[in-house]
Amino acid sequence: MTELIGLLAGFCTTLSLVPQLHRMCRSKSARDLSLTMFFVFGLGVVLWLLYGIGIRSPAVITTNSVSLVLVIVIYSLALHYEHSSAARR
Amino acid sequence: MTELIGLLAGFCTTLSLVPQLHRMCRSKSARDLSLTMFFVFGLGVVLWLLYGIGIRSPAVITTNSVSLVLVIVIYSLALHYEHSSAARR
Repeated sequence: MTELIGLLAGFCTTLSLVPQLHRMCRSKSARDLSLTMFFVFGLGVVLWLLYGIGIRSPAVITTNSVSLVLVIVIYSLALHYEHSSAARR
Repeated sequence: MTELIGLLAGFCTTLSLVPQLHRMCRSKSARDLSLTMFFVFGLGVVLWLLYGIGIRSPAVITTNSVSLVLVIVIYSLALHYEHSSAARR
């Protein structure tokens, strides 16, 4: 039951990264995105993953793995768009 | 050691909410914010809190409590700004 709550929790917080990715792909811009803050968030996700391994929690490990992939994709795309917009100037 | 990693993880992911709050207070606008997605994220934080209580993890409980307060403040302010901007129209 507790693991189910954890999985559901991770599903919700991970899900909230998807519209950010969708919006950025549509606008092809990362102007409104703070790269520093995304870096801090990504660092947090890596630490949650280590914590999940430490306490052997499948819910924490699974959901933070998915979050980490999403964060890396968002961060890379943001860097790419920032670089493209700098090259156009 | 594991609890320290968990606290540090929560510190990072909670910290990433602060610039959103700061930005919204400065612009007095929530136009760029998806209320539905913030609701899903808030729901996730509540579930993480329940999960933290379930597995008796101080790191998960503490950091998600702070996150929950920040999410409620951001959500309320977003609703307020959205209502104000609708009244001006």
